[in-house]
Amino acid sequence: MAFDFSPLFPAGTPAPAVRWTGAPKYNFTGGNNDPDAVPLQGLMQAAQTVLEREGRTLATYGLKSGPQGYKPLRDFLATKLKRDAGMTCAADDILIVSGSLQALDLVNAALLTRGDTVIVEQDNYQGTLTRLQKLGVNAVGIPLDQSGMRVDVLEAALAQLKARGIKPKYIYTIPTVQNPTGTIMGEARRIKLCELADQYGVPIFEDDCYADLVWSGDRPRAIHAISKSDNVIHIGSFSKSIAPALRVGFIAAPWGVMSRMLALKTDAGSGSLEQMVLAEYCAPHFADHVPALRTSLRKKLETLMETLNEQFGTAAEFDDPKGGIFLWVKLPDNVDTLKLYQSALAAGVAINPGPEWSTDKAHSISRMRLCFASPSHDEIREGIAILAEVCRKEFGVPERSANIERMDEHGER
Amino acid sequence: MAFDFSPLFPAGTPAPAVRWTGAPKYNFTGGNNDPDAVPLQGLMQAAQTVLEREGRTLATYGLKSGPQGYKPLRDFLATKLKRDAGMTCAADDILIVSGSLQALDLVNAALLTRGDTVIVEQDNYQGTLTRLQKLGVNAVGIPLDQSGMRVDVLEAALAQLKARGIKPKYIYTIPTVQNPTGTIMGEARRIKLCELADQYGVPIFEDDCYADLVWSGDRPRAIHAISKSDNVIHIGSFSKSIAPALRVGFIAAPWGVMSRMLALKTDAGSGSLEQMVLAEYCAPHFADHVPALRTSLRKKLETLMETLNEQFGTAAEFDDPKGGIFLWVKLPDNVDTLKLYQSALAAGVAINPGPEWSTDKAHSISRMRLCFASPSHDEIREGIAILAEVCRKEFGVPERSANIERMDEHGER
Repeated sequence: MAFDFSPLFPAGTPAPAVRWTGAPKYNFTGGNNDPDAVPLQGLMQAAQTVLEREGRTLATYGLKSGPQGYKPLRDFLATKLKRDAGMTCAADDILIVSGSLQALDLVNAALLTRGDTVIVEQDNYQGTLTRLQKLGVNAVGIPLDQSGMRVDVLEAALAQLKARGIKPKYIYTIPTVQNPTGTIMGEARRIKLCELADQYGVPIFEDDCYADLVWSGDRPRAIHAISKSDNVIHIGSFSKSIAPALRVGFIAAPWGVMSRMLALKTDAGSGSLEQMVLAEYCAPHFADHVPALRTSLRKKLETLMETLNEQFGTAAEFDDPKGGIFLWVKLPDNVDTLKLYQSALAAGVAINPGPEWSTDKAHSISRMRLCFASPSHDEIREGIAILAEVCRKEFGVPERSANIERMDEHGER
Repeated sequence: MAFDFSPLFPAGTPAPAVRWTGAPKYNFTGGNNDPDAVPLQGLMQAAQTVLEREGRTLATYGLKSGPQGYKPLRDFLATKLKRDAGMTCAADDILIVSGSLQALDLVNAALLTRGDTVIVEQDNYQGTLTRLQKLGVNAVGIPLDQSGMRVDVLEAALAQLKARGIKPKYIYTIPTVQNPTGTIMGEARRIKLCELADQYGVPIFEDDCYADLVWSGDRPRAIHAISKSDNVIHIGSFSKSIAPALRVGFIAAPWGVMSRMLALKTDAGSGSLEQMVLAEYCAPHFADHVPALRTSLRKKLETLMETLNEQFGTAAEFDDPKGGIFLWVKLPDNVDTLKLYQSALAAGVAINPGPEWSTDKAHSISRMRLCFASPSHDEIREGIAILAEVCRKEFGVPERSANIERMDEHGER
C-alpha cells in the first residue's frame, strides 16, 4: 500500500503542483525569449575557451571566486552597470544568484516577516505579488501612468502609513521597462523617489531585470546611481538579455544587507558553468548582442500590435511600450480576463489575466499581459486571431465587422 | 550618510557573513573534488554537441522539458538508478534541483515545521544539522557502527518517541558512504529500516549523494529500491561524481510529496546549460568516468591515511572508509577539535571539527573530518604535518618521538 504523505504537510503548505503536460500552442505568457536571438555560436565558443582555460576549477565549490560568484562575471557586471546605468559598484558589492527570482527571495528573507508592509507598483510582476502574499506581507500598490510609478501618490501613501505608525520595509520598483506596463520612470521621478525614501527612512528595492531591453538603447540612470544614501538594493538578470534557462542574475547591495543575504544563501553558489560561459561571452560581445536582440524583439512587438489592431480594433487599447517583452492590453470593461484566460487556454492560447498582475483587481480585471518574445511572427498572428475569436464568443467583443474590416485593410497592403 | 539596514532585519535572522578572503592553503574541508579528475574534454565536447543541436531552447524557461528539469537528464538518471541502485523510477518521478542542498531544503520545506522531530544518524552532514536547527526541528541522533546506522537503537528510539506521543516526520539516512563516517549500511539493516518505517508510519529520507564513490564499484541496493510502500524520498547529486560547482542534483519521490515540493520550488528551474551538458556527457561516459575518478580518490585517501600514520602515529584512529571523499578521525580524548580547528586555520590548515558534524558533542569533541579529494598529494602530506605540529603544540599529542620514528620508517621505503 502506498504511503500517504499528506498528514505530514505543515499547515499553509501551498497546494500541490499539477502534472506538466506541455506548453500551450500559442504561448503569450512567461518571460521566455526569442529562440532565434540566442547567441549560440558565441556561447559555444565561450564554453570551449573557458573550459579549456579553467575548467578544472569546477572541482571546487565557488570556483576560485568564493561565495559571491564567479569573479570575472562580477567584474563584467561592475563595468556594465557603470557604463549603462551610471552605477558605482565594485565586484565585491555584487552577489551572483540563480536568476532574479532568487534575488527576490533573498531580499525578502533578509528583510521581511509576517505582518510587514511594503510599497509596490500597483500593476506588477506576478511573482513579486505571490511571494509577498505567501510571506503574509501587506503590499500597498501605487498606481502608474505613462512615466511609471506616480510619486505624488507614493508621497501621500508614505504620509498616510506614517500617520498610522507603519514604516514600510521597502519601496519595490521596476523603474525601467516596468512589468507589465512597459513604462520607464523619468529622471525627475527617480530623484523624487530617492528624496522620499530618505525622508521616510525606507530603502528602495530596484528590480532592473528588463533594463537592457529599452528600444532606444538609452536607459535612464539607475536609482542605485541616483541615491546618495546607500539605501538601494539593485537586482538584475541575464534572463532577458541572453537566455532565461541559464538562471543567472545578480544583486548589487550595500554590505550591511548583502552580508545578511549571503548568510541566508545556503545553496553553495549558482551554476558555475553558466557563470563562466556568460562572463566569457559577455565581456567582449554583450554590447553588440543586445542591440540585435532588441531589433528582433521590436519587430515581434510590431507584429503583435498590428495584429491586435487588425483583430480587436478599438476593443484593445495599449501604449507602445518603451522596451521589453510584454504588452499590457486593456479590453472593454465587460471582459473578465480571468474567464478569458480559461477559454483561451482551452483553445490553445495562453495569456496572463490582469488580476494576477496587479494589487488592484477592479482596475486589472479587463486587462491582460501578452508576452511576444517567444512565439514566432506567424504564431503571434494566429494566436491573436484565435484569442479575438474566443473573446468575441464569450464577451461579444471585438465586434465581427470591425475585425473583417481590419482584415481587409491588411489584405490591401 | 549610509543607510542603516539593521533595524529592518526580522528577529532570528542569521548572523551576517564575513568577507571571503580566499581558501586556506591546506583545505581539508568542503565537498570539493579532484581537479585532475574533472572530465574536461568530455564536458567540452558535450557542450558543443548539445548547444549545436538544441541550444535555442535556452530561450525558454525549463527548455522543452517543463518544471521537473531537462528530460534527457531525467532519462539518464532513471536508467542509472535502475542499473546501479536497483531503483524503479521513471523520468516523471525525478525532479532536477540545484544540488542536493536544494533537495534538503525542498524536502524540509514540504514536511517540517517548528517543533517537529526527525531522526538522523548521530554523526552527520553539517548542512543537514544546521538546516534542522534553523527550522527549530528536534533532531534525534542514532549512533553508527561500522555497518552504518544502528537499527536496534533506531527501533528503541521509535518506541520511546511513540510512548511520548511523538511521531517523527522522517528518518534521514546517508546509507551508502555515510557522511562523515564513510560507512555503508548493510542490506539486512536496510530491510530492517524499511520494516521499522512501515511499522511506525514514518517515511525515509535517503541521501545518496556519495553512492557513486564506493571503491568496489558495487553499492548495495538503495533503500528506495527495497521499500515496498512508496515511503522513500531519495536524493542524489552530480557534485561528487562529476563536479560540485555544477550545482545539479535530483530528488526521486512519490508524486504525493513531489507535487508539494514542485509547488514550493519557485526558482524557475535549475541552470539548463549544466543540465544539458551533464545529460549529453553522462549518457555515454558516466560509467567509464566514475571508476577512473574513484581510483584517483582512493590514491589520495591512501596518501592521507599513510601520512596520518606517519605524523600522528597511534594518536589518530580511523577506519578505512568504503568510499567517498572524507575520513572521520578520532584523536586522543584531550583534544578539543573546535580549538584545534582555530589553531590549525591560523597555520593555513582547514579541518572540520567533530562537534559541527554530530548531534552528540561529547562523542565528537575529539573527532575531526578530513576531506581529501581536492588537495594534491603533496598538499595532503604537508598539511597533515602542519596539523600534527599544531596539535602537538596545543594538546601534547602526537608525541614527537612517535612522529620521528614514523618519518624514519617512511624514509626507508
